[in-house]
Amino acid sequence: MNQDYIKPDNWSIIEEGFDVESVKSSESLFSIGNGAMGQRANFEENYTGETFQGSYIAGIYYPDKTKVGWWKNGYPEYFAKVLNAPNWIGIDVEINGENFNLNACTAVNNFRRELNMKEGWYNRSFEATLKNGTEIAVNVRRFLSLNLDEVGVINYEVTPLNKDAKIIYKPYIDAGVTNEDANWEEKFWEPLDVKHNKNEAFVTARTFKTHFIATTFMQNSIFLNGKDLNLTTENVESSKDKVQFIYAISVAKGEKSSIRKIGGYTVSLNHENTQLAASNVIKSALTKGYDLLLQEQIDAWAKIWEMSDITIDGDVKAQQGIRFNIFQLNQTYLGKDSRLNIGPKGFTGEKYGGSTYWDTEAYCIPFYMATKDQQVARNLLTYRFNQLDKAIENAQNNLGFKKGGGAALYPMVTMNGEECHNEWEITHEEIHRNGAIAFAIFNYYRFTGDYSYIPEKGLEVLIGIARFWHQRASFSKNKNQYVILGVTGPNEYENNVNNNFYTNYIAKWCLDYTYEQIQKVSLEYPSDHKRIMEKVNLSDAELQDWKKVSNGMYFPKSEELGIYLQQDGFLDKDLVPVKDLDRSQRPINQKWSWDRVLRSPYIKQADVLQCFYFFEEHFSKEELNRNFEFYESFTVHESSLSPCVHSIQAAVLDKMDMAYTFYLRTSRLDLDDYNKEVEEGCHITSMAGTWMSIVEGFGGMRVKNDALHFSPKIPKEWEGYSFKINFRNQILKVSINHNDTQFSLEGSKELTVFVNGTPILVEPNSLVTV
Amino acid sequence: MNQDYIKPDNWSIIEEGFDVESVKSSESLFSIGNGAMGQRANFEENYTGETFQGSYIAGIYYPDKTKVGWWKNGYPEYFAKVLNAPNWIGIDVEINGENFNLNACTAVNNFRRELNMKEGWYNRSFEATLKNGTEIAVNVRRFLSLNLDEVGVINYEVTPLNKDAKIIYKPYIDAGVTNEDANWEEKFWEPLDVKHNKNEAFVTARTFKTHFIATTFMQNSIFLNGKDLNLTTENVESSKDKVQFIYAISVAKGEKSSIRKIGGYTVSLNHENTQLAASNVIKSALTKGYDLLLQEQIDAWAKIWEMSDITIDGDVKAQQGIRFNIFQLNQTYLGKDSRLNIGPKGFTGEKYGGSTYWDTEAYCIPFYMATKDQQVARNLLTYRFNQLDKAIENAQNNLGFKKGGGAALYPMVTMNGEECHNEWEITHEEIHRNGAIAFAIFNYYRFTGDYSYIPEKGLEVLIGIARFWHQRASFSKNKNQYVILGVTGPNEYENNVNNNFYTNYIAKWCLDYTYEQIQKVSLEYPSDHKRIMEKVNLSDAELQDWKKVSNGMYFPKSEELGIYLQQDGFLDKDLVPVKDLDRSQRPINQKWSWDRVLRSPYIKQADVLQCFYFFEEHFSKEELNRNFEFYESFTVHESSLSPCVHSIQAAVLDKMDMAYTFYLRTSRLDLDDYNKEVEEGCHITSMAGTWMSIVEGFGGMRVKNDALHFSPKIPKEWEGYSFKINFRNQILKVSINHNDTQFSLEGSKELTVFVNGTPILVEPNSLVTV
Repeated sequence: MNQDYIKPDNWSIIEEGFDVESVKSSESLFSIGNGAMGQRANFEENYTGETFQGSYIAGIYYPDKTKVGWWKNGYPEYFAKVLNAPNWIGIDVEINGENFNLNACTAVNNFRRELNMKEGWYNRSFEATLKNGTEIAVNVRRFLSLNLDEVGVINYEVTPLNKDAKIIYKPYIDAGVTNEDANWEEKFWEPLDVKHNKNEAFVTARTFKTHFIATTFMQNSIFLNGKDLNLTTENVESSKDKVQFIYAISVAKGEKSSIRKIGGYTVSLNHENTQLAASNVIKSALTKGYDLLLQEQIDAWAKIWEMSDITIDGDVKAQQGIRFNIFQLNQTYLGKDSRLNIGPKGFTGEKYGGSTYWDTEAYCIPFYMATKDQQVARNLLTYRFNQLDKAIENAQNNLGFKKGGGAALYPMVTMNGEECHNEWEITHEEIHRNGAIAFAIFNYYRFTGDYSYIPEKGLEVLIGIARFWHQRASFSKNKNQYVILGVTGPNEYENNVNNNFYTNYIAKWCLDYTYEQIQKVSLEYPSDHKRIMEKVNLSDAELQDWKKVSNGMYFPKSEELGIYLQQDGFLDKDLVPVKDLDRSQRPINQKWSWDRVLRSPYIKQADVLQCFYFFEEHFSKEELNRNFEFYESFTVHESSLSPCVHSIQAAVLDKMDMAYTFYLRTSRLDLDDYNKEVEEGCHITSMAGTWMSIVEGFGGMRVKNDALHFSPKIPKEWEGYSFKINFRNQILKVSINHNDTQFSLEGSKELTVFVNGTPILVEPNSLVTV
Repeated sequence: MNQDYIKPDNWSIIEEGFDVESVKSSESLFSIGNGAMGQRANFEENYTGETFQGSYIAGIYYPDKTKVGWWKNGYPEYFAKVLNAPNWIGIDVEINGENFNLNACTAVNNFRRELNMKEGWYNRSFEATLKNGTEIAVNVRRFLSLNLDEVGVINYEVTPLNKDAKIIYKPYIDAGVTNEDANWEEKFWEPLDVKHNKNEAFVTARTFKTHFIATTFMQNSIFLNGKDLNLTTENVESSKDKVQFIYAISVAKGEKSSIRKIGGYTVSLNHENTQLAASNVIKSALTKGYDLLLQEQIDAWAKIWEMSDITIDGDVKAQQGIRFNIFQLNQTYLGKDSRLNIGPKGFTGEKYGGSTYWDTEAYCIPFYMATKDQQVARNLLTYRFNQLDKAIENAQNNLGFKKGGGAALYPMVTMNGEECHNEWEITHEEIHRNGAIAFAIFNYYRFTGDYSYIPEKGLEVLIGIARFWHQRASFSKNKNQYVILGVTGPNEYENNVNNNFYTNYIAKWCLDYTYEQIQKVSLEYPSDHKRIMEKVNLSDAELQDWKKVSNGMYFPKSEELGIYLQQDGFLDKDLVPVKDLDRSQRPINQKWSWDRVLRSPYIKQADVLQCFYFFEEHFSKEELNRNFEFYESFTVHESSLSPCVHSIQAAVLDKMDMAYTFYLRTSRLDLDDYNKEVEEGCHITSMAGTWMSIVEGFGGMRVKNDALHFSPKIPKEWEGYSFKINFRNQILKVSINHNDTQFSLEGSKELTVFVNGTPILVEPNSLVTV
């Protein structure tokens, strides 16, 4: 953990000093995104040091043919890749005849990166001495417009410091890019067309197989001392997938030259004619101009923060951590488009091909529900509804037979509804994901009070999922109960176990909840009920069978210890707690062979405790405490999704030191690079867990019977903190310090909230202190 | 199953009629080998239809970099490939200006292949009409000399039938070959040198990485009507990895022309200068000449059959099946070289990279012990002894810690002692293989009476293996017993299970057996004992720990059913017997997704029953019967190693119809292509199981207290059968029919054998009838 690498700051991520060793990590941490596209913090100019180039467009993927040593039946045909998109940021710079390259300078001073989260821009500045002796000051600002979400803007300034300079700016766009993680070293982009006209250029390329078309565009203006030179150039280099303009200017010592580059993508997901669209987008951007685009950016981010900011007083690292998490989540997904979802690395890296995991339902939806309009969460639910047919196909692969038909198994990883991961122990066996998708429907209604989603779309999803569990459970004569054999639970450090408690529990819950919703829709939405029942052809006999499975479900437990067992046989392990494990052995997934990890008792992320998190009200606090004490002692938290759940439960159990430690670990996972892998990208989905740690953990927020409940706590390290909740179209601000809790409400209706069980009336626009 | 494809014959494998669909299958079935090299039955001349080219040299492999989708810690770095060696058989033939190619002829008549197992040669004959109207008769005979085991011989005859013909023979050797199953499409051979001189040519090439050098050579003679034309040619095409001679002759209608090609390999495993060696080998072969080489071949095979033949009267398919099995085993491995072993596909295909599996110890050693000099089995044991250091390294990867040190885990698949397979569920967890390696040492001594191997080499192997089990077992407080968690048993349709009965049992047995051998060596071979104990540093305390683990070992069982459980939780499965499974669902490994296979009760090959096979005398016949009845009902026999064990146990249990059915399935697995995959190669190691089915199954042969026991049975379909056993350097022939059993003995000492428990004295060179 490099504690000094990122400077503490309330609103910005700041790096000072140039270190080739941290370039790739910084490329991840200083990534920018606007929900529609994203860009790692790669340098615009040529750089010969180690770098991981990444530019990503939401919804554009490539089905790379699966590569495994031994094929097992039912493996998915492909592994979807988050595609590295064509380069729109490139600006080669030549200074007095030398190609400028930070890796080849004789000196680099005052190097500073800043990601200004409040205003949504990224800035890089430094002074450098070239081998030819020219000293220059460089300042580059870049942002991806939230308002014109196909547009990125770069303002690249160079000031020669010690002599006059001939500066040649060579901006380019280039579709000749590759992916770091291609299975077969194939190219993913096929160039279709290249055009340029005055200062504008367009490269249109198509992905192989999926045939997404993207026009990458740029428009350039050259400035001297802030004045637009209105320069055009005849000097253009163009190939089948690249266009590069060459602008030469003379700049006197001390004068500031700059190039403003507008660039980005227009894609066939949104446009019939992507090139025409690109041309129009450039016009819109030019009409606004750089200053207005930047001001709009600041305003748009202000609106996002208005809704979703969390303040923490007295702990700048904690403050920076939570804002970084909220900022990255908003850079990744803004909820405008139900075709999109939240990839685990967002727009910061390629790892974890595919965009949608159960992370969305288990971790992200609570954040988006509480900090955005409820339509955003509804769009995330609709995403799964739209992929129901493919989940039904997928279940046939897994179950291999029909019993009532229509069983749905959502894929572990997907872009388009098809499975695109390929380890059998995950894809085929980590089936609990189906439960989280049902749980999100329940959670959406619980939080928003919007039941309409269920008769409209949700019930069909629930029925598909319930049918899966009904068929996937089997009857054990030996136990005289229903069992679920051969699964991998949330703790992926176990594979192919029998009767994972979490899986069995959520399976039973899905059956019961779906059954109840069918009854409710039948009574309250009879025409929807009729439409759905005709479509899914669900008989009473099948429903009764569900009940049989649900009522007869087996749960492994230890009466002696008063805990549920993570799976059958868990107590046969060599139960050495993590605290007695030599530090040199960790992280175990890097130090131990896989079989040793599997036979150990060590837990990657909350498993039994995930069940206690989802279904808290089903268990007593004593039960929670016993299970927490037992399982936490074996948990190594080698998943980014682990500390947040533990933080919340530690807070519930008044273990505030533990809760705070877990909070820090989740909120600064990437900034402090706990897992030594931030160069691959940031852990986006777990950032929603960080938000939960504060709001549900320290704040103790729950929704029960259509009302907000809080049980406010505060780590001793903090002076105070505040967060906002969009509860049913009113914004409630909650501020907590060591003495009291304050509520204020934007909205028109009074709201009763409960604090530690006591009802408190909050009037609109007045402060209530408890 | 194509019952008519191979013609029934007592001594030959015969195919009649040309069918492009069966070319690849026939290439496997008609493969020839001599223990040092092997050759699929590829055509010598150009063939544009589907073909799988394969030529293999024993001990020459390539470490292909492992390719898996997701890397898990401890995966082997490479997957060893059986290498397709340079082509030595190629003879392009041009007839009246047309390249002869069976796939382009207008007619092919009387096409016939014969693999003469008695004499060890392969013949192909047919008449063909070329597109230019020329009709030719072709007869090609090919063999790999047993006596000069670097030499292959081809006699390729062409007779023009309807007109005079200009025939151009173009024999070549070519190192520009590829593997079908290369992970990264790399070339494996790097050409070093090409030479030719008169009718001889040499291509020397080196494998990448492993740097094996092989000189591929040829020498050609052209004949007309049986007379050597003593032709040489100046017309030679030569490239960096290929030499091709061009011999043109005029052949009148009805005259028989032929080319005799001597070819093969000399390799750096055996020679300093492979090219010089090749030159010498050609001289030796030419000195003998074709006729003598063929006669020597016939004589050498006669000697092999003399020792190992099994006759079956009244059932030609069963006779053909067992001879095919014995023939292929002898083609694959003759036991001369302790650096070699028995690959699952022998020299008939590339699949299952690596040459050595536990098949060798569990299935092949009994065959080789009984049909060869005992040195052959000793060589197979020595192979493991020589790889002990690498097995100790491998155990560190698996165990990750030392407890007494020196634990050895033999790899699942190997060429050189390193693991070269890469599925964690196999490589890391199918650890029972270690047990079979220890068992083979016990079995060798039991059969041969040669204890000297144990103090000399075996004890060190046993200690390494015992140490592994000692460390791999862990103590379950819950069960208050030692458990072995996270394993895959012989039934590979279960992965990562706890307490596989077979594994726990053989682990305990290894601990006990090794303990006993240490005591015995200590008393009887004190200097060996001292040497070994100093080397392995084994304390009394560690030995006492072994006893603790052995005495405390847990075995899963069902008191109610009176059976041992294949693993913990087996009875929780949905126990539908195979007979109630829809035929359309089989083979399940082709029809079902892997998770479904795993959670099903279906068994790929004997697992609990393998334990009953190895340790028959530890269990009562009633126990065997209960376990057989239970587990056989769930066994799908989708491993080639499964039917033989079931056949033997069915015979023990007097279920003779079942025993016969299993026998047929094992003996004609490839000839009748039960598993629809013979085109990939033959199942060599399971062929030793076929031999066991007759000798140990029907014949009931066992060795107890240094004596041979028999309990002869005979399938009702047979009139009689006979086999020979090399028991302690005397050859006992056993002939069994429905009335009696006859014994005759080659040797100098009388021998007491037991028939159904009754001692029978057999004098040398006299017949005893019981």
